[in-house]
Amino acid sequence: MPLINKGRSLPNAADLVGIQIELDGEIFDLCQFAIAGYERTLNLRTGLSQRELEVQSKKGRRYKMSFKRFVSMDDLHLIAQKIEITPLDDDCELSFKTGINGRMTNSSVQHFSEGAKRLHDGQFLEAFFTTTESKIEFAVHSVIKTGTDNVKKLICMDRRRIYTVFSAQIEKGRAFSFEKLSSIHTTRDIEFKDVPIAEFREICLNKIRETGKRSFDQLLEKSTEALEEKLWRYCDAKIDSQDNFDQLALRFAVYHLFIMTPAHDSRMSIAAKGLSGEGYKGHVFWDNEIFCYPFFLYEKPDIARELLEYRFLSLPGARKKAQSGGYRGAQYPWESAWIDDGETTPVWGAADIVTGKATKIWSGFKEIHITGCVAYTVDKYYRLTGDIDFMKQCGFRIIFETALFWNSRLECNARLDRYEINDVVGADEYKEGINNNAFTNYMAHNNMKLALRYAELIKDKEYADEYAHLQNEIGLEAIIMETKEKIARFYLPQPNENSIIPQDDTYLSLKNIDLAKYKNAAQVGELFKDYNLEQVKEMQVSKQADVLMALLLLEEQFDKEIMRKNFDYYEPRTLHDSSLSLSSHCILAKKMKDMKLAYQLFKRAAMIDLGPNMKSSDEGIHAASLGGVWNCVVLGFGGLSQKGETLLVEPELPDEWKQISFYFIFRGNRLWFEISKERIKIKNYGSAGIPVCVYGKESILQAGALYSFIIY
Amino acid sequence: MPLINKGRSLPNAADLVGIQIELDGEIFDLCQFAIAGYERTLNLRTGLSQRELEVQSKKGRRYKMSFKRFVSMDDLHLIAQKIEITPLDDDCELSFKTGINGRMTNSSVQHFSEGAKRLHDGQFLEAFFTTTESKIEFAVHSVIKTGTDNVKKLICMDRRRIYTVFSAQIEKGRAFSFEKLSSIHTTRDIEFKDVPIAEFREICLNKIRETGKRSFDQLLEKSTEALEEKLWRYCDAKIDSQDNFDQLALRFAVYHLFIMTPAHDSRMSIAAKGLSGEGYKGHVFWDNEIFCYPFFLYEKPDIARELLEYRFLSLPGARKKAQSGGYRGAQYPWESAWIDDGETTPVWGAADIVTGKATKIWSGFKEIHITGCVAYTVDKYYRLTGDIDFMKQCGFRIIFETALFWNSRLECNARLDRYEINDVVGADEYKEGINNNAFTNYMAHNNMKLALRYAELIKDKEYADEYAHLQNEIGLEAIIMETKEKIARFYLPQPNENSIIPQDDTYLSLKNIDLAKYKNAAQVGELFKDYNLEQVKEMQVSKQADVLMALLLLEEQFDKEIMRKNFDYYEPRTLHDSSLSLSSHCILAKKMKDMKLAYQLFKRAAMIDLGPNMKSSDEGIHAASLGGVWNCVVLGFGGLSQKGETLLVEPELPDEWKQISFYFIFRGNRLWFEISKERIKIKNYGSAGIPVCVYGKESILQAGALYSFIIY
Repeated sequence: MPLINKGRSLPNAADLVGIQIELDGEIFDLCQFAIAGYERTLNLRTGLSQRELEVQSKKGRRYKMSFKRFVSMDDLHLIAQKIEITPLDDDCELSFKTGINGRMTNSSVQHFSEGAKRLHDGQFLEAFFTTTESKIEFAVHSVIKTGTDNVKKLICMDRRRIYTVFSAQIEKGRAFSFEKLSSIHTTRDIEFKDVPIAEFREICLNKIRETGKRSFDQLLEKSTEALEEKLWRYCDAKIDSQDNFDQLALRFAVYHLFIMTPAHDSRMSIAAKGLSGEGYKGHVFWDNEIFCYPFFLYEKPDIARELLEYRFLSLPGARKKAQSGGYRGAQYPWESAWIDDGETTPVWGAADIVTGKATKIWSGFKEIHITGCVAYTVDKYYRLTGDIDFMKQCGFRIIFETALFWNSRLECNARLDRYEINDVVGADEYKEGINNNAFTNYMAHNNMKLALRYAELIKDKEYADEYAHLQNEIGLEAIIMETKEKIARFYLPQPNENSIIPQDDTYLSLKNIDLAKYKNAAQVGELFKDYNLEQVKEMQVSKQADVLMALLLLEEQFDKEIMRKNFDYYEPRTLHDSSLSLSSHCILAKKMKDMKLAYQLFKRAAMIDLGPNMKSSDEGIHAASLGGVWNCVVLGFGGLSQKGETLLVEPELPDEWKQISFYFIFRGNRLWFEISKERIKIKNYGSAGIPVCVYGKESILQAGALYSFIIY
Repeated sequence: MPLINKGRSLPNAADLVGIQIELDGEIFDLCQFAIAGYERTLNLRTGLSQRELEVQSKKGRRYKMSFKRFVSMDDLHLIAQKIEITPLDDDCELSFKTGINGRMTNSSVQHFSEGAKRLHDGQFLEAFFTTTESKIEFAVHSVIKTGTDNVKKLICMDRRRIYTVFSAQIEKGRAFSFEKLSSIHTTRDIEFKDVPIAEFREICLNKIRETGKRSFDQLLEKSTEALEEKLWRYCDAKIDSQDNFDQLALRFAVYHLFIMTPAHDSRMSIAAKGLSGEGYKGHVFWDNEIFCYPFFLYEKPDIARELLEYRFLSLPGARKKAQSGGYRGAQYPWESAWIDDGETTPVWGAADIVTGKATKIWSGFKEIHITGCVAYTVDKYYRLTGDIDFMKQCGFRIIFETALFWNSRLECNARLDRYEINDVVGADEYKEGINNNAFTNYMAHNNMKLALRYAELIKDKEYADEYAHLQNEIGLEAIIMETKEKIARFYLPQPNENSIIPQDDTYLSLKNIDLAKYKNAAQVGELFKDYNLEQVKEMQVSKQADVLMALLLLEEQFDKEIMRKNFDYYEPRTLHDSSLSLSSHCILAKKMKDMKLAYQLFKRAAMIDLGPNMKSSDEGIHAASLGGVWNCVVLGFGGLSQKGETLLVEPELPDEWKQISFYFIFRGNRLWFEISKERIKIKNYGSAGIPVCVYGKESILQAGALYSFIIY
């Protein structure tokens, strides 16, 4: 009986924002006070989160309250809060306590041991916590500023907490306000590399002393400027829709894509739930390369590079994983965390309703397509940016080591005289342990093909050093020879007589059941309230795009008819039980010119985190889905893609939209697009001419020029 | 900068009693539903805890609810619950989820790693958890029985939880009821010693299968019988008071004293907060020997022996502690947990309001009197029971090894040509690092005296084996020689010209401040909102009895006049900032014939856990104070004590009481007392005559006879 592997988690650090407020002896609680007014806003432009309320206590006294807070984009260590309380009916006896609360856990798992706590200079709260396994110290500081009011205070500490209790008398109608500024630094922060611990602690303490001199409003202004500079100036895509929600959803997606991405440190990458929840423990999936990546590739190519550097730095973990399975080369973990962790997927999941046992999560063992996805994205990045420096530093190594993994993973079917990939979980996770999954085989094949192509490239004497190095380090020539031999006999599932590409060796022979009940379910996972995974394995039902995903990513290899036939076959069998599914199908539907369905799928994708189901984000927002929302707008409806050196432009807007506009970086040149139903305007702000193909018509966008294409 | 020592804790195991109830789509929450009726009772006779409520949901629908639960005294592993829900206004859509919730922590510290979870036979929930440091496995099982109703259920598991969601339709006015039976077993349980883990798990699973066949009511009946048999039949002391509260408080005390004591396993002892809270982490203090002990000594002598066996088994920890301080023999830890842990007192405590730093808790380093208290209690047990077998097995060893500790701890003051004990914390913990604390010196002196007395005893050839063994193991003769030499010159603080025994070398010269504000404070610890410990050290103010405690425990050594003078001096300087303080002062006040004050102090002691301050038991009940309540009644007002072989009987009841009656075991004979203001009735249910001395008048209580003494 195995102990559940605790695995790597994004640990919940000490809480700095909690404040317990007592009003005339009653502890303020939104569940117990009557709410006369409540407005909660997140300002995407400034990053300010704000609640304005009017409440009535059980004793019947009314209070106005305002809570503002933000995490600074100017100083990522800083959290600032401003609170305002106004008693409306009478003078008020106010008391509140706040400070540093180290009693946070991850679903009750405690990742920190407690260090020293202290109050400095009568005002700066300090506490240290150290992660139990990786021994990273967190230095946490807070200062609470109550202005010149006549406020009494008392310092308290107990287990894992240090806080101050304030009490004051406020007059009726007069707003009492206070500010709390807090900082978190860790010894893992790249800026503290090689800094001795005592010095680290001193720097952090001095920083809060400095920060404490500024006001909330000053700090907010700095943060807003930084956010404008880093994000909104060029990344604010606009939609003129009948429904304002569409614009909001897009900005919400862009905002999250940016704030959740650790662009300052390529030893980390984007968690499946961003920084907003415990779901998936902060781990990194293929979501990044396939769903979040395009936004960065076309809007923030410097960050796009860093995201792939993360995969390069993670090669030690990927080699570890390959080895542990008896393979060669680099196999990317299904879930990855710190760069040298290797596989971090938990082993046990939800209850099997039939056996009563925990279900084994096979993804960490069998969902191997991610390795092909990483290689695919390296190529995509290079093809767009031409960043040969990256390829020399990181890219070649990833491509060849992953190809080597596939070489070792292919299984020879002697009877059929071909190589196959058996016993996998595909992109469609409802089928575990199947053979020749279409998505996996196509992505592996592509990976091997890329190795052959880049091997050709670096034969050029310009890359002699790199070639020699790779030959020396990983035996490049042998890899290439083996790849050539194996790819020639590698089985790729082919369209059958109905043009349907089989999702795996058995899928097309499974029984069909009526999926209406599950297709329209308000929540994901409804199917598993009626069937267990063993039973689902026997049905033609998919969680998300699989064959279609291959068609979308490797579009150049397939003709339109194949895509249409397979779309019509698989979409009705797909429950979209993954947040990854809707946006891909939206883009495919647009390609099929089913604009009604495309818009419907866009809406559903946008609703995942912003819709009326308040529980959908309980474990955090859906990073890949937010990436997908941007993809739908710019790559889907905006119709942009790359073919060789050429930018393809084939937009089509849904009926509900009048116009979209956005910036888009293509091969280092910033372009501006304005697309309506009648016209496509493109301005090239870059320094080079860009070959474009608008609805099949080729031309060159000259640097600095504005073009207008009429749509007939 | 030291990491806070995590230390040993009584870990919070998985929650089995929590149930989330949804009524017509609204989650039931006492804070959010309107409460039309609420009654909560704990039946001390049956151990049944019960809540009866009538509530109204936000939608305005009314429900009657009943929650019953108990932990079985017949099978200590078993927790049983019965819930009844009746919709009053309309048919009701009921749903509830419950199971095993392993997301419990100790103030966010997680002491368990998660093991496998599973549902057996479609109904028995199972989960395993293992303590992270000591690797004790907890096997947790639950079964929920919903009777024959038409109930749908769905099994769920996620991180650290396994539970079932039930849903049912209930008719208006019809009670829906269900029962939940749960069990917890651990590999540390003495019954599973040397049982292989697989077998252990199977036994636990089979047990819940068996238990599941019984009904809540059947199990409650068994438990009630066991409680009657083990406790109430003979331990129910009665008070006929003007205020019924007094009887309740006494029964509440007796109930807790019994249920919180691990009488089944002498490797454990009574925690300072019993089993009712996290305070003091489940550690064992001098509270046991000095405050809780008399109840067991005179009511349950078999348990009294087991409590001292715990100290015997803890000798390895006590030796470890002595050694770590550079001493010889056995020094009992200020706080102890598992038998071989040694000292477990945390090192850091609350904030110093002046410096802002955490205050160092010196008790673990300097509060050394506990060693004397353990030896004192061994002697008390033996003098009462004459249990020479215990002395041979455990008692002698404790007495001599602790005396050896004192020998090594005494410091020679060459100038004054005497031995002293310097740099200690006394029973009064407000003074840290003082010299010649009265309580410490007297208890150490007594400990050494006991060693000399028992050394005389076992010189008898009857104990030749024990003598040889002790000589061989610990060098008894050398210990005794050294003890004799040192005790002769050991300084015991003597009454000064005003008959006041100085609490330590400097106490009587410190300044006096007006304590009125703190003596009358509603909460303990008020003094420290104005002063830090450094400042308090400079004042004549005590937390609790110190000199007076020595006078009370070693009463035979002092005359009444000294006791009175010191009582009048120290009581006004004592804040009773410890729950240990009130009951001792109550008994002393009764001895001073100040019945008004005595009764007042009894009431305050009884109020600690049962009074109107609902926050006083936030961290758990006060075990020592509950022991004290019993002591007040039987030893204080009841006036019972032992002198040599004789039972002294000197009762005096407060004005408010008409009569008290109770059983009392003296030297193996069960006596029954009924004491009123006019008369003392005693019946000897034992088999031997008992010499008694009633108000100075000696006689023999013959076996089987009933005596009546008139009080003039």
